[in-house]
Amino acid sequence: MKLADFLSDTRTRFETHLLSTFQPSPSQHLASAIHYSLLNGGKRLRPALVRAAALACEHDNDDWLVPATAIEVIHVYSLIHDDLPAMDDDDLRRGKPTNHKAFDEATAILAGDALQAEAFQLLANAVNFNDAQVRRMLISISAGAGHQGMVGGQMLDILAEKQNGTLEQLETIHRLKTGALIKAALTLGALCQKNVSQETLEQLENYGDAIGLAFQITDDILDVTSSTEVLGKPQGSDLDGNKTTYVSLLGLTGAEHHAQQQFSLAIESLTNMGLNESSLLWQLAEYILNREY
Amino acid sequence: MKLADFLSDTRTRFETHLLSTFQPSPSQHLASAIHYSLLNGGKRLRPALVRAAALACEHDNDDWLVPATAIEVIHVYSLIHDDLPAMDDDDLRRGKPTNHKAFDEATAILAGDALQAEAFQLLANAVNFNDAQVRRMLISISAGAGHQGMVGGQMLDILAEKQNGTLEQLETIHRLKTGALIKAALTLGALCQKNVSQETLEQLENYGDAIGLAFQITDDILDVTSSTEVLGKPQGSDLDGNKTTYVSLLGLTGAEHHAQQQFSLAIESLTNMGLNESSLLWQLAEYILNREY
Repeated sequence: MKLADFLSDTRTRFETHLLSTFQPSPSQHLASAIHYSLLNGGKRLRPALVRAAALACEHDNDDWLVPATAIEVIHVYSLIHDDLPAMDDDDLRRGKPTNHKAFDEATAILAGDALQAEAFQLLANAVNFNDAQVRRMLISISAGAGHQGMVGGQMLDILAEKQNGTLEQLETIHRLKTGALIKAALTLGALCQKNVSQETLEQLENYGDAIGLAFQITDDILDVTSSTEVLGKPQGSDLDGNKTTYVSLLGLTGAEHHAQQQFSLAIESLTNMGLNESSLLWQLAEYILNREY
Repeated sequence: MKLADFLSDTRTRFETHLLSTFQPSPSQHLASAIHYSLLNGGKRLRPALVRAAALACEHDNDDWLVPATAIEVIHVYSLIHDDLPAMDDDDLRRGKPTNHKAFDEATAILAGDALQAEAFQLLANAVNFNDAQVRRMLISISAGAGHQGMVGGQMLDILAEKQNGTLEQLETIHRLKTGALIKAALTLGALCQKNVSQETLEQLENYGDAIGLAFQITDDILDVTSSTEVLGKPQGSDLDGNKTTYVSLLGLTGAEHHAQQQFSLAIESLTNMGLNESSLLWQLAEYILNREY
């Protein structure tokens, strides 16, 4: 399948599933805030990674939908909390008011909290998997989301804003803040296949590590080279804030070279798995490297 | 065992376990904030409920420690977030500065987020239980913590502050905000026993529902009758804020009568399980009704 078709099909199927997933909430207000952020577009890159990993493990049915929803729900909760005034203090997300602007801060905090619980609840209740699969999925996603993963990275990122960081520190932050959940997405996709090998899981983790970094490096590059309209957020905002980025550390050409290196590492893992350039994971790595927003 | 000894023994064992539980964090700052709130005393009532439920199911070993930690970790995260300026805006918790006062708001938000993930991670990794037990525990705790449980109750509670509520609305809020996690504590304790019956789980849920309400009613009574020193928070704070409470709705005597009714319901469930007044769950119900802080 061509990547554009895959992404479009994944997005459609994912969003249809998403709408049918949430149980009624005792607070309509809270439900509205949750839906507001869940349905605020986005590339749905993580669901696509879950599905592509399942396909790479020759698991070709709709089982990917529940783990994809769990991963995306964690991602959405983290965006809601990251946007809060005490955190990044952002008013816009994908061109629309952030959750705490559309509702209020208390609601945004609770919507994020509820979404995190929901991710675990969805997986725990997933009927398509046996108890051992569910448990392995929950181990992976909780580790990716917690203080040794995404939240730890967000904390380091906030603390790093007050000082100039090294390349190593920057990569540690990104490995945790973005990479940990991307790796969990790939692991969950692979675990849709009951008998996935340890070797495959490790190659997918290496692939995830590399595309996670490539994604962030590209983010930093786009902040300099793209426009506010295309990005949906103010262009040049990193430089204004004197933030340490791959571009500030390595220059534009150096950052592009570094992204290319990560791409090569990702491809190496896929080759080890016996996949070639027609595979969706390969095309996704190319997409992450070459994306324009 | 006498309740005082049980609570003291449970607390000691629980806190020793808690200290040994957390993996190193990539951010020492985040780890400090997490430890600060985790180790800030408290009655450890929920761990005691987990253990007492396990004992009521004739499961008498240390298996209760991991589920007790998971439940308490959820409780502690909820307190950190509830205390935030955008929520209840409290400066003190058990006589010490709240997390966002001791650290800052961003750290407090992230510490809460990390703790929630940690609760699920601890259970998913619990070696003492089989995959089916782990899954049932995760279903219970995630439902108790999410938008249909604790977080939903917190949202309704915040919205209710702007209007006068009925007794039914107040009970709905408390059933969700406090009761859902108390019920999960009892369920997790019972699930330590591999072959616990559905009947036992239902009786424990009824018991949890009743003592959860009794706990809240007693809270409202103590706010009027106790002193700031004993409570560790300003006495009469509910009345100052014109908050709807059991006392404002029913009067002091009516509230005491209502608490007694809930106590009777709790005892009825225990009797159905074949337990008597020497059982710890019975003593815990008495303690919740008669506590002084």
